[in-house]
Amino acid sequence: MNLILLFESDFIAGNLVRLSDRRMRHVLEVQRASVGDELCVGLDGGDIGRGVVTILSSDTLQMEVRFNKKPPPKLPLTLMLAMPSPKVLRRLLYVASALGVGKIFLINSRRVEKSFWKSPVLDPTIIRRQLIRGLEQSRDTIMPEVLIRPLFKPFVEDDVPNIIKNTLPLAAHPDAPEVLPRNVGYPVTLAVGPEGGFIPYEIDMFRSLGFRVVQAGERVPPVEAAVPFLISRLF
Amino acid sequence: MNLILLFESDFIAGNLVRLSDRRMRHVLEVQRASVGDELCVGLDGGDIGRGVVTILSSDTLQMEVRFNKKPPPKLPLTLMLAMPSPKVLRRLLYVASALGVGKIFLINSRRVEKSFWKSPVLDPTIIRRQLIRGLEQSRDTIMPEVLIRPLFKPFVEDDVPNIIKNTLPLAAHPDAPEVLPRNVGYPVTLAVGPEGGFIPYEIDMFRSLGFRVVQAGERVPPVEAAVPFLISRLF
Repeated sequence: MNLILLFESDFIAGNLVRLSDRRMRHVLEVQRASVGDELCVGLDGGDIGRGVVTILSSDTLQMEVRFNKKPPPKLPLTLMLAMPSPKVLRRLLYVASALGVGKIFLINSRRVEKSFWKSPVLDPTIIRRQLIRGLEQSRDTIMPEVLIRPLFKPFVEDDVPNIIKNTLPLAAHPDAPEVLPRNVGYPVTLAVGPEGGFIPYEIDMFRSLGFRVVQAGERVPPVEAAVPFLISRLF
Repeated sequence: MNLILLFESDFIAGNLVRLSDRRMRHVLEVQRASVGDELCVGLDGGDIGRGVVTILSSDTLQMEVRFNKKPPPKLPLTLMLAMPSPKVLRRLLYVASALGVGKIFLINSRRVEKSFWKSPVLDPTIIRRQLIRGLEQSRDTIMPEVLIRPLFKPFVEDDVPNIIKNTLPLAAHPDAPEVLPRNVGYPVTLAVGPEGGFIPYEIDMFRSLGFRVVQAGERVPPVEAAVPFLISRLF
């Protein structure tokens, strides 16, 4: 936790916040702060700044906070991620949020196991918790949007044409003839398939909408590593 | 599993292999192969090729195998990774192996929790299992070397000068003034700190040996994402 993300409900008066949850425990047990210490804080959806600890006991952290800096900019990226296994999804939400992805569509694909769509990880509370962990890691305050689209065809036909407007649309695919471009300097829409990849029909649909089908190299990284790997090349 | 990694002990005669473990179950339940199908196989430490299924039952997979291709080259990278938590280490061994890292030193740092060095994940059998999963994912056959170095100072003073010879030595550090170079086209030794980063004393030691101290950007990715992120930039 490199930033303590604060919400309106944490404020007890003016610029005074009081915490008694896992954020308090982190400050107490991991950061081992004391009264008078300055901690990095951020306001949900707003600026980042410093909090001076005024009270710290085993059940209360009180800080006087001041915000003075914009959070880091989001990546100019919309991620369309074929629904991964619950375990991998949980980690990817955290990682994508930390890397600065602003918008994530969880999409279907033939090779997505149907049971994944019934996973409790899709509960908005759990999604939000993972996104918050990512923001705390990378000192950001702007919650990414996560949109769940369990029907491939209507999503691709009806929504994708608008989503990709004014972006470079790319579909990552293991055996693509073209290699992922580096450092593109332009907004990107990136579709990432499931373990095993998109099926040919799906790749054809992306291609027909103008997507360039690209590979990351001779090796196929696991999805959880592919996302940071692809993002790092692109930006 | 995009490649079935085979060992000498799997051979029952000539080019005939018989499997009855999780590899067999994967072929049966995930790949859903049948007799006559061709599967991608690789020989531990050797070439990759194809295996034709000759017998497939609920407890036996038999294949006739032929090897005809070199595995993909390893990255020209030596990774020095501050010992992460057991959970993260397990994933990172898998990911680093899949990405083609050939040599990994697990090193100490002030901010590494002492208990991590007693984790069962450091058992050679468990390490090896994760490395094999990575090879199976990225169709490789050459086991990465994992070397455990729990004493920071003697390692850095006595071993690092030799390790970094003829490489570009880099230490990743959140607030470094210099930004990670892209696509370096040269062998690299990369030191990656623990959550919270190396302490100034450690960074100074790396610097005194000729390391360039570099950051990945304004955001600090979690260690598990930092490794693929950094590798993707560098190569």
